[in-house]
Amino acid sequence: MDQTKVLELIQQKKYVELKKVLSEMNEVDIAEILDPLDKNTTLLVFRMLPKDLAVDVFAHFSSEQQRDIINAVTDKELEYILDELFFDDMIDLIEEMPANVVNKILKNSTHDERDLINQFLKYPEDSAGSIMTIEYVELRKTMTVKEALAHIKEVGLNRETIYTCYVTDKNRRLEGIVSLRTLVVSPEDEVLIDLMETDVIFVSTHDDQETVAGVFKKYGFLALPVVDAENRLTGIITVDDIMDVMEQEATEDFQRMAAMAPSEEAYLETSVFKLARHRINWLLILMISATFTGGIMAKYENVLQSVVVLSIFIPMLMDTGGNAGSQSSTLIIRGLATGEITLHDGWKVLWKEFRISLMVGITLAVVNFAKTMLYDKVGVLISLTVSLTLIVTVVSSKLVGGMLPILAKKLNIDPAIMAGPLITTIVDALSLMVYFTIASRILHI
Amino acid sequence: MDQTKVLELIQQKKYVELKKVLSEMNEVDIAEILDPLDKNTTLLVFRMLPKDLAVDVFAHFSSEQQRDIINAVTDKELEYILDELFFDDMIDLIEEMPANVVNKILKNSTHDERDLINQFLKYPEDSAGSIMTIEYVELRKTMTVKEALAHIKEVGLNRETIYTCYVTDKNRRLEGIVSLRTLVVSPEDEVLIDLMETDVIFVSTHDDQETVAGVFKKYGFLALPVVDAENRLTGIITVDDIMDVMEQEATEDFQRMAAMAPSEEAYLETSVFKLARHRINWLLILMISATFTGGIMAKYENVLQSVVVLSIFIPMLMDTGGNAGSQSSTLIIRGLATGEITLHDGWKVLWKEFRISLMVGITLAVVNFAKTMLYDKVGVLISLTVSLTLIVTVVSSKLVGGMLPILAKKLNIDPAIMAGPLITTIVDALSLMVYFTIASRILHI
Repeated sequence: MDQTKVLELIQQKKYVELKKVLSEMNEVDIAEILDPLDKNTTLLVFRMLPKDLAVDVFAHFSSEQQRDIINAVTDKELEYILDELFFDDMIDLIEEMPANVVNKILKNSTHDERDLINQFLKYPEDSAGSIMTIEYVELRKTMTVKEALAHIKEVGLNRETIYTCYVTDKNRRLEGIVSLRTLVVSPEDEVLIDLMETDVIFVSTHDDQETVAGVFKKYGFLALPVVDAENRLTGIITVDDIMDVMEQEATEDFQRMAAMAPSEEAYLETSVFKLARHRINWLLILMISATFTGGIMAKYENVLQSVVVLSIFIPMLMDTGGNAGSQSSTLIIRGLATGEITLHDGWKVLWKEFRISLMVGITLAVVNFAKTMLYDKVGVLISLTVSLTLIVTVVSSKLVGGMLPILAKKLNIDPAIMAGPLITTIVDALSLMVYFTIASRILHI
Repeated sequence: MDQTKVLELIQQKKYVELKKVLSEMNEVDIAEILDPLDKNTTLLVFRMLPKDLAVDVFAHFSSEQQRDIINAVTDKELEYILDELFFDDMIDLIEEMPANVVNKILKNSTHDERDLINQFLKYPEDSAGSIMTIEYVELRKTMTVKEALAHIKEVGLNRETIYTCYVTDKNRRLEGIVSLRTLVVSPEDEVLIDLMETDVIFVSTHDDQETVAGVFKKYGFLALPVVDAENRLTGIITVDDIMDVMEQEATEDFQRMAAMAPSEEAYLETSVFKLARHRINWLLILMISATFTGGIMAKYENVLQSVVVLSIFIPMLMDTGGNAGSQSSTLIIRGLATGEITLHDGWKVLWKEFRISLMVGITLAVVNFAKTMLYDKVGVLISLTVSLTLIVTVVSSKLVGGMLPILAKKLNIDPAIMAGPLITTIVDALSLMVYFTIASRILHI
């Protein structure tokens, strides 16, 4: 509704009313409306926005739109944008921009800012340092509530969050935290040293962002302090950025589990060549590994030749094994990712999967026996062979699927790669071996 | 470190020191330490905690521990816990407790509370209503900043959040929101009507929690108001609860994609029988569907019988097709879940997948041709048959994998079920048909 209205006002060049409507809208919605428009229109409307809102909108534009705007605005306008942008958004921006735009940005920064930018760009990708920002409220433990609130009133608008404030000593070492809630409900003359929490939970600049997300989820914090190797406060991470991290980490797990190289880029914006490159490695590895399976088939060629009907059930056996194994490995991989399953649970998982797989395997075998007898009409011996193989296959795939992720984690490999595709390849070989062994015994081939 | 220390103090019965140490710790950490202890020890230590901290710790206990504590404490103690517990935690508690404990809870509630509890229990599972809470700060637009802050100071400790405040009229209709940040940085005599944001983004009690999580991610809010059918403010949802929702929704997608019935219960705490039940349905369906594949094999039995070596490559072809299809379906399912891909992108996806699949398929075919010629030594014609089949299989599985999730979404089915296992079953049949068709042409069988 808002969107149509805004677009109409733009088209009819009713700029006075447009300005009024936009100034009352949320920055995310404005960015969403302006982003797909041509760059001249976007720039025109962008310049109509109240200055502070304009910067907020800018932070939510796509990188293409940001690039076009930086290229089009004056140095003075750019300086304002850069000044007002939160530092984490600025770092994100620099990482996305082409070299000439980065140069324009750096040219408009002070010497100190450039130093800080360089320092931040050096933090490893996906580390706490790479997602933190420097706009936090710093207080001293000797301050009274009144003094603290006065300080917040002064600086509050330029801080990413003011709801958690950080009490530091003169060397920036973190001594405590105090929430704005505590400040607002406490008597004015209380001193921070009596109010602050000293059991501060923090992360280090080099911690992985997945670890950071885990801390947020565990404690339900709105922000988390980040300290350097000397325990000095260097930045904070806020919960809105962590929601992006959680989504991104889940997406990476989905990609790894489907045998792809993980990527943060949006599907529709990634080139065909790059997407193909992300997918080909695993497909090649898995295709070559299937040579084992082919080897087993070749070894038992005589069995296949004498009872060709056996081959009919190969796809079903392989798929059921793969599916049963994927179920187990997916649950365990996810449990490890959310922290619900730990490395100590190996035996518990094994025992649980064993019992589950027996139940599931026997049920499938019974249904399959009935089906092969009544529908396929292949006789008792072959039905028995297929059904017995099913049980052994389901049990072994669930055990393999349950254990491999835990084993991977023990070896410091990402458990997510032990998902469906890899399990399937292993289970295929297993189930064929079981199938032919049972067949040669029962059918006396 | 803290944990060992606390356990030592408990063992050595140094209760004075224990009390001091615990009173400075985070409630989540305390709950984590006490939860595995036997119920008498837990209760003993629990009763030592400062009252407010005790309730916070209680909210983080496992349901078994909560049940034991409710059973053990006096009515007076229980009344305090229930009074101080946030309403959403109380509803979660009631949903988890056995009937006799629920009775004890209801006996200790007032008539009004019981009415409210009943109303909340009626909201559909996973709806906004089922995760909201009622402890928010309500303000009037005629208030000055000073009056608003005084009100917050008075009620602030018992509100789930005070950082976003809700401006309502006398019928509880939502007129605007104002952040505590705005209040703290504004002059004392400003009136809320001039400060509040009127472009309020809200959700309805019956909206799905996944939709709510989407709104949080899009706007980066800390809290979101929930309104009823008459647009009256009935509750709020805070970002910490949304992190749980995001994790839960991702887990459900993982489970559906691995052909399981989704479940919110933790793996280690779910019974073997229940886990087996979640897995068996899809395995049965997929096993029975594999009848098609068997049918195709049976139909081409003569081809297989005359050139048995063809069967050697069946597992590899099926697996590669399945893996290639899973890659595509996973990316599309995830893109649909995060909102990055919409229903309008169908053709874009199709065209993109087509080009990717050609690149990937041809690469695989070339490698495979070399391998079958040099390693398997099966001759040009069979190598050609297998490699051509590979290309067709990869292309068709990627198209199927890319389109089915979008089709499912169009039909209002959860796209997540169109993942690996289902795609594999479809692609198996496809690849076998292609294989035998190409084989009979090239080998003139």
